[in-house]
Amino acid sequence: MTAGIIGATGYAGAELVRLLSGHPEIKNLKLSSVSYEGDKIENIYPNFLSRISGSLVKAEEVIASSDVVFSALPHGVGEPFAASCMEKKIHFIDFSADFRFDDDEQVYTAWYGKNYKYPELHKNSVYGLVELNRQKIKNLAAKGPVIIGNPGCYPTGGSLGAFPALVKGLNQKELPVIVDAVTGISGGGREPSRSFHYPECADSVSAYKVGSHRHSPEIARNLSAMAAAGNNPAPQLIFTPHLAPLNRGILSTIYIPLSEKWRITPVDAAMPPSKEIEEKTECIRELYADYYRDEPFVRILPSGFTSATNRVRQSNYCDISVHMDLNGSTLIVVSAIDNMVKGAAGQAIQNMNILFGFDEKSGLEMIPALF
Amino acid sequence: MTAGIIGATGYAGAELVRLLSGHPEIKNLKLSSVSYEGDKIENIYPNFLSRISGSLVKAEEVIASSDVVFSALPHGVGEPFAASCMEKKIHFIDFSADFRFDDDEQVYTAWYGKNYKYPELHKNSVYGLVELNRQKIKNLAAKGPVIIGNPGCYPTGGSLGAFPALVKGLNQKELPVIVDAVTGISGGGREPSRSFHYPECADSVSAYKVGSHRHSPEIARNLSAMAAAGNNPAPQLIFTPHLAPLNRGILSTIYIPLSEKWRITPVDAAMPPSKEIEEKTECIRELYADYYRDEPFVRILPSGFTSATNRVRQSNYCDISVHMDLNGSTLIVVSAIDNMVKGAAGQAIQNMNILFGFDEKSGLEMIPALF
Amino acid sequence: MTAGIIGATGYAGAELVRLLSGHPEIKNLKLSSVSYEGDKIENIYPNFLSRISGSLVKAEEVIASSDVVFSALPHGVGEPFAASCMEKKIHFIDFSADFRFDDDEQVYTAWYGKNYKYPELHKNSVYGLVELNRQKIKNLAAKGPVIIGNPGCYPTGGSLGAFPALVKGLNQKELPVIVDAVTGISGGGREPSRSFHYPECADSVSAYKVGSHRHSPEIARNLSAMAAAGNNPAPQLIFTPHLAPLNRGILSTIYIPLSEKWRITPVDAAMPPSKEIEEKTECIRELYADYYRDEPFVRILPSGFTSATNRVRQSNYCDISVHMDLNGSTLIVVSAIDNMVKGAAGQAIQNMNILFGFDEKSGLEMIPALF
Amino acid sequence: MTAGIIGATGYAGAELVRLLSGHPEIKNLKLSSVSYEGDKIENIYPNFLSRISGSLVKAEEVIASSDVVFSALPHGVGEPFAASCMEKKIHFIDFSADFRFDDDEQVYTAWYGKNYKYPELHKNSVYGLVELNRQKIKNLAAKGPVIIGNPGCYPTGGSLGAFPALVKGLNQKELPVIVDAVTGISGGGREPSRSFHYPECADSVSAYKVGSHRHSPEIARNLSAMAAAGNNPAPQLIFTPHLAPLNRGILSTIYIPLSEKWRITPVDAAMPPSKEIEEKTECIRELYADYYRDEPFVRILPSGFTSATNRVRQSNYCDISVHMDLNGSTLIVVSAIDNMVKGAAGQAIQNMNILFGFDEKSGLEMIPALF
Repeated sequence: MTAGIIGATGYAGAELVRLLSGHPEIKNLKLSSVSYEGDKIENIYPNFLSRISGSLVKAEEVIASSDVVFSALPHGVGEPFAASCMEKKIHFIDFSADFRFDDDEQVYTAWYGKNYKYPELHKNSVYGLVELNRQKIKNLAAKGPVIIGNPGCYPTGGSLGAFPALVKGLNQKELPVIVDAVTGISGGGREPSRSFHYPECADSVSAYKVGSHRHSPEIARNLSAMAAAGNNPAPQLIFTPHLAPLNRGILSTIYIPLSEKWRITPVDAAMPPSKEIEEKTECIRELYADYYRDEPFVRILPSGFTSATNRVRQSNYCDISVHMDLNGSTLIVVSAIDNMVKGAAGQAIQNMNILFGFDEKSGLEMIPALF
Repeated sequence: MTAGIIGATGYAGAELVRLLSGHPEIKNLKLSSVSYEGDKIENIYPNFLSRISGSLVKAEEVIASSDVVFSALPHGVGEPFAASCMEKKIHFIDFSADFRFDDDEQVYTAWYGKNYKYPELHKNSVYGLVELNRQKIKNLAAKGPVIIGNPGCYPTGGSLGAFPALVKGLNQKELPVIVDAVTGISGGGREPSRSFHYPECADSVSAYKVGSHRHSPEIARNLSAMAAAGNNPAPQLIFTPHLAPLNRGILSTIYIPLSEKWRITPVDAAMPPSKEIEEKTECIRELYADYYRDEPFVRILPSGFTSATNRVRQSNYCDISVHMDLNGSTLIVVSAIDNMVKGAAGQAIQNMNILFGFDEKSGLEMIPALF
Repeated sequence: MTAGIIGATGYAGAELVRLLSGHPEIKNLKLSSVSYEGDKIENIYPNFLSRISGSLVKAEEVIASSDVVFSALPHGVGEPFAASCMEKKIHFIDFSADFRFDDDEQVYTAWYGKNYKYPELHKNSVYGLVELNRQKIKNLAAKGPVIIGNPGCYPTGGSLGAFPALVKGLNQKELPVIVDAVTGISGGGREPSRSFHYPECADSVSAYKVGSHRHSPEIARNLSAMAAAGNNPAPQLIFTPHLAPLNRGILSTIYIPLSEKWRITPVDAAMPPSKEIEEKTECIRELYADYYRDEPFVRILPSGFTSATNRVRQSNYCDISVHMDLNGSTLIVVSAIDNMVKGAAGQAIQNMNILFGFDEKSGLEMIPALF
Repeated sequence: MTAGIIGATGYAGAELVRLLSGHPEIKNLKLSSVSYEGDKIENIYPNFLSRISGSLVKAEEVIASSDVVFSALPHGVGEPFAASCMEKKIHFIDFSADFRFDDDEQVYTAWYGKNYKYPELHKNSVYGLVELNRQKIKNLAAKGPVIIGNPGCYPTGGSLGAFPALVKGLNQKELPVIVDAVTGISGGGREPSRSFHYPECADSVSAYKVGSHRHSPEIARNLSAMAAAGNNPAPQLIFTPHLAPLNRGILSTIYIPLSEKWRITPVDAAMPPSKEIEEKTECIRELYADYYRDEPFVRILPSGFTSATNRVRQSNYCDISVHMDLNGSTLIVVSAIDNMVKGAAGQAIQNMNILFGFDEKSGLEMIPALF
């Protein structure tokens, strides 16, 4: 089988190239790049030398010779390629935000400043957060070629940490869920810019786009979908992204105010955590473990462990640790992913595996690197 | 004037040595260290070579020959030295938690596992968060020698970002204030340990002691004090610390649910921030700027800027930026300090300046380093 | 086949555990650790959660139930285990320096301060730098169980970069070869210490053990062996190690003074490199490429590329780039390896593959990570 | 006195702005920037907020209202401003390479690709490596306005480490001196580029421009000048620059082959360093200490210490440690500077202090930061 990758020289594209090179079902790769057309991928990424060699051709050529196409292009330019793939009856997996909002063009336009050029494509696309939409993806694949809107990196880590609480209705309905996340610099892509220039971001941590990041509507939509799955009302979302000097990884600290039933009162918050808090936390941890029991890439950490990005590095895992605040009022969930793998290329492969009926773990069995 | 430093070879102690060396009112330093008694400070910190030379003597010797004593010892061992200073009638500025809880021994004991050995000392000690207690510090200094409990690093950054909102009663009383903070590795001190071993913490971000960090009661107490100053009830606090690969700095993201009067409803949170949100944010920013108008070390950032630790590096500033969430329901404040300066040694000098009636900025005029 | 790992919880041991978990010929792992006996490996390295689970038992138990044994213990303690393996007639691959000096006990003792307790073992051990001793390893394996002295990290990177020049006699015999190397912090192991405490080594580069590092005699011996293979006299060696804030990687810059025949004179070194220098460099580059043509893990970079540790990260490759100085008098070779893989665990697996007649690349097909 | 800074928004310019703000003899700063004309410096560098405020004007305006002018512009554009200053009879201190080669236009043109437009200016300019040319600078200043070619960062660290050996003729004349240097990322300036994009350079070390860096002729010229001062012939130079993930700092490891008289023979290099080597090293260390006795910014480290960039961070010091290789044939000197201070802005201020007869340490008394 031949996999085509459009936009192969960006970070997400190149990570995908590297991961697909080890995928047991993929025999050939076909690569395109607007910036480096005619060049070879190993000249752009010398780490591929002697291992991955491929001329960078036009997107059309990639589509013509592939059995599945991945697009790692920027937002707003991939629709025509999606259309070509549908015509050719092959699956199209898109890393941009273009197919993440189904037919809710209004939200897409408000945040990304672009309109849908092929609105009909969006009726049959599906948002590829596997843990939310696995069955829907399978159903669509059974009928014909599918367009997958591969999730954003923040929405992946933030949503997975909140799902069990929302579907089970642990949260106090009127209060917002807060996703406070820290990401590494690779999330900003390969294009040099002031913000990601080494001396500007090394040895420093900062918040950015506070109250205005465009992953907000995507996360909010996911949380609502999950709450709805448990017949619960949509929660409000507050999302704050931060930048820290890491290459890879997103750590999300998620604050979920607990409903009357789940919270503990009264509590003397001036004192260290009570036994009751520890027991309740353990109870919710088990609920989380139970919820994700069959998920191949979600790990609920045992009591005593807290999620850290270096424990999922270079892997497709989402680690989740469950905690409670001193007041007994708020569930605190910490999730960690590798933004380039579970937050981008790995998740795309997971989607491909489902579309083709491969083992969902195929090509994704990387054990997290020590460092 | 001679300043004595007990515990001079830990990071906070050595930072204090370096800063006091440039203080216009301090002519001599007298240093002690349990670990390195008899050695010279420049052998421990070769960056001091040719600039700061001093044999490390016993604490008693330091006290005997100083006009003010700083203690950068661990928690639970400084009381006898405080007692000696009171007897000798000189000020004692303590970096540990021993004098941060006034006479509330119960809270101190619950979190630090130790009892007060000299309970009477704690009746006259004062918590040295200058922006909260400046007048109290001055009043005490007018009467005699003072014991200062120099604030913890997290409590400094977290409290300063919340004060104006709490004293003015912007917050919805029943809901918790969340302080979500990220710190660098120097906060863990100079003693090597697994958590701060380079390969374990480089290129990674993690949460730790979620819902159980002992700076929680200190922050909570500060917020309550400030709310009380505005005749408002004490808010609940949720505090989550994180570790990121930086040498210095704490960034605190503070979520303050707004009261009916200050929040905006209805809001379509699926859409980008409305003009109303921007205006309300500007209004609160002005309130913050007004509140801190006369504080020499608090900078309220103009609209368009967000706090970052590298903008206060090596300085005594606390930068604060003011934001609002997409729902119009929650004030989000981001504060940044250098944990070794405003969060430790710089703040201690600020306290000394007040105690002696020096210009509060003396010896603290460092402009933040570029990188 | 079952592989046993003694000293499984140090960094090199744990890296080996991770890599062997993906080795197609290894079905089971048996692990021991002195520090954590009775515990489980995934509690020490939570990145292994849900993937590698194994109780840490005694070394004797590991040997008893394994078909090959790796020892990642410190210097000076592994001999008895080697003896047990020889008795049991299974291969023993040792990460320490104990078996790197064959029966040259005098040099070993001078640098490591220990004596051989089982001198006879050292007569049949072999130094496992595959590119130097592949045939010797094969020959020994044909006769019975083998003890491999797995090379040190610096000696691997430093020697590989110099071999072709020495075997071909490009160097001026009387002058020393200089290996100037920079390593990351993981090379210092997992035990916390002042030198590898994050704030002491982050954002800084330093030299250490200048003129006195104990990898010197190992590198010198390798260079001599290779020169001898080309009937050339042993060169002198100067070796200087440096520490930089990386997790992984060693970059070696190797200065090889060229013999009359290979150097270019006269040259106006005040001017940019002449065409003649470029041509001579290309000529030597081809000689290098030719020399390493059949080596699966050595890559000679094309003209225009310079070795960097991030281009071999997480892989078993040694990248080598070939340059010449402005005076036309000295060959400058830059080599890069991942110290945990080619410099430790990967090379050990390469040795195992040879000992058992597996494909030498088995379990080592990792493509270098992007970042 | 008013200091003018042309090119104030690059890293070196901004560092100069920050340092001059604390200089006791400078009352006003006048700043220009081509990129940000009309904007305010504190908007570009928010770390200056509330401390340094200044509108960025045209270069001409800066010159018109200043008593001394610093230019931190790129190579090849500063000559007209130098000419204006000469006309106005004020000193001009240039950070670019334009005035580093005196009237040797041929070398300048070969490496920088530009011609002198005002050749006569170069006859009276002086290379501002104070430790080489202090007296020459003073002499010129006594006669009228001076143009200083402020040294490059690598040439500063590399030359200072080699001077005493060359002036005293310790080196074997026919053999090259090798300067192997590692620098941080700020040396690449403030303009974003692929090489200095965080994910490309974090967690990695690499060599670059091996055998072809344009600081080579500048270092070679310095070494020759110093050798000539001792009536010794000019040595050849080999210079290799490396990049490591630091914000600031250059570490230079300098290999100086010793002459017959100074080398030790015979030596058994397979053994640890002999007592004779230690004694000879100490002897050369004393010679170095003696040579630099009166230099305010050069520190010869005592035996047992090795230079590290974090020991000079944020200061104007050059630390030098003296070592010898195991063969007793080569002196190894390690020098460390902060590339932004002693390697750029600090050295420029040192030059200004000399030109105006101020205390040479004025405004440069920063004690190296701990981290």
